[in-house]
Amino acid sequence: MANVIENGTITSPRGFIAGATAAGIKYEGRLDLGVVCSEVPANAAGMFTRNAVKSAPVLVSAPRVAHGAARAVVVNSGCANACTGERGLRDAEAMAALAATKLGLLPEEVLVASTGVIGTFMPIDRVAAGIARIRPDSRGGNAFARAIMTTDTTCKEIAVAAGAPGGNFTIGAAAKGSGMIHPNMGTMLCFVSTDANVELRFLTAALARCVDRSFNMVTVDGDTSPSDTIFVLANGLAGNALFDQTSGAVFEEALGHICEHLAKTIAADGEGATKLLEVTVAHALSVEDARVAARTIASSPLVKAAINGADPNWGRVVCAAGRSGASMEPDRIGVTLSDVPVMSQGMPVPFDEDALRTRLKSDRVSIYIDLALGDGCATAWGCDLSHEYVTINASYTT
Amino acid sequence: MANVIENGTITSPRGFIAGATAAGIKYEGRLDLGVVCSEVPANAAGMFTRNAVKSAPVLVSAPRVAHGAARAVVVNSGCANACTGERGLRDAEAMAALAATKLGLLPEEVLVASTGVIGTFMPIDRVAAGIARIRPDSRGGNAFARAIMTTDTTCKEIAVAAGAPGGNFTIGAAAKGSGMIHPNMGTMLCFVSTDANVELRFLTAALARCVDRSFNMVTVDGDTSPSDTIFVLANGLAGNALFDQTSGAVFEEALGHICEHLAKTIAADGEGATKLLEVTVAHALSVEDARVAARTIASSPLVKAAINGADPNWGRVVCAAGRSGASMEPDRIGVTLSDVPVMSQGMPVPFDEDALRTRLKSDRVSIYIDLALGDGCATAWGCDLSHEYVTINASYTT
Repeated sequence: MANVIENGTITSPRGFIAGATAAGIKYEGRLDLGVVCSEVPANAAGMFTRNAVKSAPVLVSAPRVAHGAARAVVVNSGCANACTGERGLRDAEAMAALAATKLGLLPEEVLVASTGVIGTFMPIDRVAAGIARIRPDSRGGNAFARAIMTTDTTCKEIAVAAGAPGGNFTIGAAAKGSGMIHPNMGTMLCFVSTDANVELRFLTAALARCVDRSFNMVTVDGDTSPSDTIFVLANGLAGNALFDQTSGAVFEEALGHICEHLAKTIAADGEGATKLLEVTVAHALSVEDARVAARTIASSPLVKAAINGADPNWGRVVCAAGRSGASMEPDRIGVTLSDVPVMSQGMPVPFDEDALRTRLKSDRVSIYIDLALGDGCATAWGCDLSHEYVTINASYTT
Repeated sequence: MANVIENGTITSPRGFIAGATAAGIKYEGRLDLGVVCSEVPANAAGMFTRNAVKSAPVLVSAPRVAHGAARAVVVNSGCANACTGERGLRDAEAMAALAATKLGLLPEEVLVASTGVIGTFMPIDRVAAGIARIRPDSRGGNAFARAIMTTDTTCKEIAVAAGAPGGNFTIGAAAKGSGMIHPNMGTMLCFVSTDANVELRFLTAALARCVDRSFNMVTVDGDTSPSDTIFVLANGLAGNALFDQTSGAVFEEALGHICEHLAKTIAADGEGATKLLEVTVAHALSVEDARVAARTIASSPLVKAAINGADPNWGRVVCAAGRSGASMEPDRIGVTLSDVPVMSQGMPVPFDEDALRTRLKSDRVSIYIDLALGDGCATAWGCDLSHEYVTINASYTT
């Protein structure tokens, strides 16, 4: 079992250093540029957005991480460097090269990621000056996590430790995400470090499975970003016997814990959100059906607005499931809102409206829908839709 | 060419009568029950929601309209009669039977539709008392249109007249729609009457084509309702030479005008909307690609919130297109917001931000995106996302 490390960060695993600075990319005096680096070579895996429009950092980093090895990540907030053409690609390469020089690495060993406004060019002079100022060390994890925040109201980081034959290992991670969250792969940005000794092929496969059950089941607003990225660097300093497809269950469980924790944290911190929404679809005809129905419910503006107002409007839950494309027989459906049954076999069930309303005012609301058709089950996470979401997004570029 | 009739209604065509009453279905003293009836037999066509969860009136009316003939429609607002199981089906049949008795028709000649809260049973006694009170006549069109409003702030009706060999014809229509609008077939509710003499097969085909270019390209919130319904009744009293696939162009053009007008009116009156949003995707690889990209942009919460705030955040437009599934080459894309070019060949174009912001404050905003790939073109209509949308939907059932 993986244990959560108190105040753990991306530098909790052995051999990782990080640092950040306020480079003035969009705002003055706010951390917006960070690096994280393994002191020794590391296996690397990554996943990226499936949006047809990909940011320059995604286009630069994808072939690098495909080699299976990397040493460092340089990341900024405030400018996404997306929709910036050839110049954007040159800027992303320059960012990586500047970080490589600073850290004594080859440019190809450095991955790059950016988040912020789309369609503006990177202020590369400020990035260069910022990178020169960063002093990465083993206590720099929290500053790194804060440097990637944009509309996030909480800093998202975690580390867990677990035992394994040959040596205990640690996994640390930092993530950002609050708006344009409907990942089809990683979330906005997530970086994972570990000192575990992990076979590359298993690392890649385990990452894909964990992401599929966590970040790929989160939605804030249904909009997939061009910057979605997750990287994991595994440097092996834990000295454990190599984790692979047969021996790696303990590693995958720990990685899954990290991913699910961060995914839920992102949903709870959705732009303007006042509540975390957890939607479970049970007994769907297939897991894929359960996944699509859960995500459709969690992303329905009408469901989200009702949850905001603690309105037990369960009809919207059924309608969202009905338009999701999942197979269903309406006369079999059951719905439970925050543990109160409201629909059974396709019909309304009498319930104490005041009592349910009180439950729906909690900062955590659950929706459970039973399709009574098969064995497919999946959970998705989202949040409510508030006035504050509109306020934030009515004036984001200015 | 079809000419719009001033103050035209669903009873503008010859031989149609309508009426409405306040039956107290959800609120007291508000029109909420209406009937429209052709005084002579009429060809009938209809289209319905593709949501897997269908309301009882949809399930009752679909086989009736499939016969190709109908005389009347009875409709209520305040209760959708959806998720109501067997009892709901019996209630919908009873509504039609009560209207048939009142109008001297067979129950099978009456179509039924309902809109309102999902998951509550129809107060059938109040419906019966209401139907008994209705006195339909040729001036009842406007009352009928008002009786189907729920969160609508405008009454949606139109009539057009056009010339044809053998006799001028008229088409009238009433629609409702404001929330749960992402039709995959009709909109919430739309009823069309005409005195034109129209072959049934052509009527059905023309309706499908018109709906595909109008109601099926409207979105308010991405949520498809279980009640979406459109009916057209054509009673032939105009005496024109039969419209069919070869002779019916003038009829289809007039019907298309009606559908597009009502679709845009529904988008402009989206819940909480302050602006009509018109999204055109040009030079997509196919019409289907253009349609899906246009609808995805028009339904993006981030695009809609930016439009609410008159924020020229065009990056969100490109990102929504990028996640739509339409083929695109990012380096070719051009974007124009309310006639101001902001992106060309995948790169930002300098523009006067204050001037564009002023244009985006208009009550009609256009987005034009050129994919520079092929011949596919489509237009979708939507609206902005406002605080008021959240307010309306945070407490709808109460």
